[in-house]
Amino acid sequence: MKDTAIILTSGLLASNKAKTAHGLIRGTDRFDIVAILDEESAGKDAGVVLDGHSRNIPVVSSIAEAVAKSKRPIKYCIIGVATPGGIIPEAMQDDLIQILDTGISIINGLHHYLGDLPEFVEKAKSNNAEIIDIRKGKPKTEQQFWSGKIFDVQCPIIAILGTDCALGKRTTTRIIVEAAEKKGINASMVYTGQTGWLQGKGHGFIFDSTVNDFVSGELENAIVTAYETDKPDMIFLEGQASLLNPSGPCGSEYLVSGNAKKVILQHAPQRTFYKGWEEFDLKIPPIQRTIDLIKLYGSEVIAITLNTAGLTNQQIVRYKNKYGNELRIPVLNPLQDDLSELIELCKK
Amino acid sequence: MKDTAIILTSGLLASNKAKTAHGLIRGTDRFDIVAILDEESAGKDAGVVLDGHSRNIPVVSSIAEAVAKSKRPIKYCIIGVATPGGIIPEAMQDDLIQILDTGISIINGLHHYLGDLPEFVEKAKSNNAEIIDIRKGKPKTEQQFWSGKIFDVQCPIIAILGTDCALGKRTTTRIIVEAAEKKGINASMVYTGQTGWLQGKGHGFIFDSTVNDFVSGELENAIVTAYETDKPDMIFLEGQASLLNPSGPCGSEYLVSGNAKKVILQHAPQRTFYKGWEEFDLKIPPIQRTIDLIKLYGSEVIAITLNTAGLTNQQIVRYKNKYGNELRIPVLNPLQDDLSELIELCKK
Repeated sequence: MKDTAIILTSGLLASNKAKTAHGLIRGTDRFDIVAILDEESAGKDAGVVLDGHSRNIPVVSSIAEAVAKSKRPIKYCIIGVATPGGIIPEAMQDDLIQILDTGISIINGLHHYLGDLPEFVEKAKSNNAEIIDIRKGKPKTEQQFWSGKIFDVQCPIIAILGTDCALGKRTTTRIIVEAAEKKGINASMVYTGQTGWLQGKGHGFIFDSTVNDFVSGELENAIVTAYETDKPDMIFLEGQASLLNPSGPCGSEYLVSGNAKKVILQHAPQRTFYKGWEEFDLKIPPIQRTIDLIKLYGSEVIAITLNTAGLTNQQIVRYKNKYGNELRIPVLNPLQDDLSELIELCKK
Repeated sequence: MKDTAIILTSGLLASNKAKTAHGLIRGTDRFDIVAILDEESAGKDAGVVLDGHSRNIPVVSSIAEAVAKSKRPIKYCIIGVATPGGIIPEAMQDDLIQILDTGISIINGLHHYLGDLPEFVEKAKSNNAEIIDIRKGKPKTEQQFWSGKIFDVQCPIIAILGTDCALGKRTTTRIIVEAAEKKGINASMVYTGQTGWLQGKGHGFIFDSTVNDFVSGELENAIVTAYETDKPDMIFLEGQASLLNPSGPCGSEYLVSGNAKKVILQHAPQRTFYKGWEEFDLKIPPIQRTIDLIKLYGSEVIAITLNTAGLTNQQIVRYKNKYGNELRIPVLNPLQDDLSELIELCKK
């Protein structure tokens, strides 16, 4: 049976700062999410707040209410937001101390480790609760350098990259893996972020909290482990950031170290500037440039998947036609379309 | 006055595994290198072992001999080799314990931290010596995320990238900075490796021991610090690895996060396979591919610099003509050529 957990979003559930929470509301094999703690959206269903579809996960305004509504004792509270610089704000720290006081353990995916704060360590200890800082990752001595064993992987490796951060690469990866499984294909997922870890599907590591020298080796190791353990027909890699984003370019590791010869490129048609960098006038370049770049790395973009948040059906159709005509590859809405064609392309 | 130091290379001085030692023999503003401890090359001059040019640095076979030959007391012993996986072999550990016993402190640039080994910590303490693990780097709370302040830097930023690891990017950077200085140009160097730190020239950080999320921000911060502190006419960045090397691709950070619009590309003409990956048949792609990739990232390769190790003068001329004709940009031997033309290109 999955462990029970609530998610703390501190008023941000309806914003895209709560992307960890959003991923867990969409689905997790690791936890049974019994409530979201968020005063701003309290009283609603979390799925309705996310995308209009109920998931039977209540949003509550207090830890007491969460405890009262849950059929089973609550084991964990997961911090469900990304904060600027990964720092946990004072107000949220107060909430977390209260939560520890009820004996609920905390799972923290931010850079700011609760296990480094004596007040939290003592509070957890006295309440027999745990603090799990998931970004701390493996001890250095257990981390891998790249070894070349990636070339032993005989099935297709497909990376889901994107033209920006925070536009749905992980969600698209998960949807494609599930679509493949429905067609009887044994598909493996390699996650690379803390939400992937929390969702508990597949193998992986946390890319951005890995020391640079070990990134290529840890990625290779996750792919090889997925290959050896699952004996899959194909392996899908959750991408991070984007190749051209100055706040942290990323992608070449998937292509050259992870040997992903195929790429599915996630794109948000109405986003002009890199998320969070609007005031710097940092424009996302035309999608063709990312496709050309991927080609020079020796891989091929086989399809575009669209982030359709906020788009009307008419707009979606228009963007599909536009990119389809320009790029001459399939353009799909992963949340709604039949993905059979895409999965066939991955097989080849 | 610079601190005295010896370098431990454990029989590897004549091999390219001793690249940290080689960099320090070429020059350091931080240390006065009084001897190299290396049984295989003992009795020779370290500069002669390196490239045939004497530097008045004796290679000795024991710590006692080093102490006897040094005019001043020896303060530090620097580990001068890169070992597989960054692990310190047993035999070298024995040497290091002996060195601590003489009261000499140890500077370690490997991933394997001596400060984590109780035997070393106790030995250092009882001999009043220090252990400095330079890769440990800054505490996480002092590390920077990318902020966009790079766009305030008004002088040219030039990255020295390469087509492989271990082919002289740092040395070329240092030579170009010195050539610029000789022409009265105020040039800043941003180092990105442990040898750069040991050489003590300029500002910088250790790229490959930085947690991935902070790489872009630490690089930006080093450049901005160099700009604000030195008020330079131009800033040169020491590159790491290469854009297409599967064991750890690197370079896009310099171009998009570090805003280096110009690139000098270091290349070893006679190297067919990536260093250390010969048995995997991992060929270095044609140089044009790296130039095209850099262009798609929005930057321009303004010149090629050659690693001429092992080449005859005739071969050097032939490669200069070949690449000059193919690529139509200047091709230089940084160890011998007049670099005026190159520095003019950097100014524009």
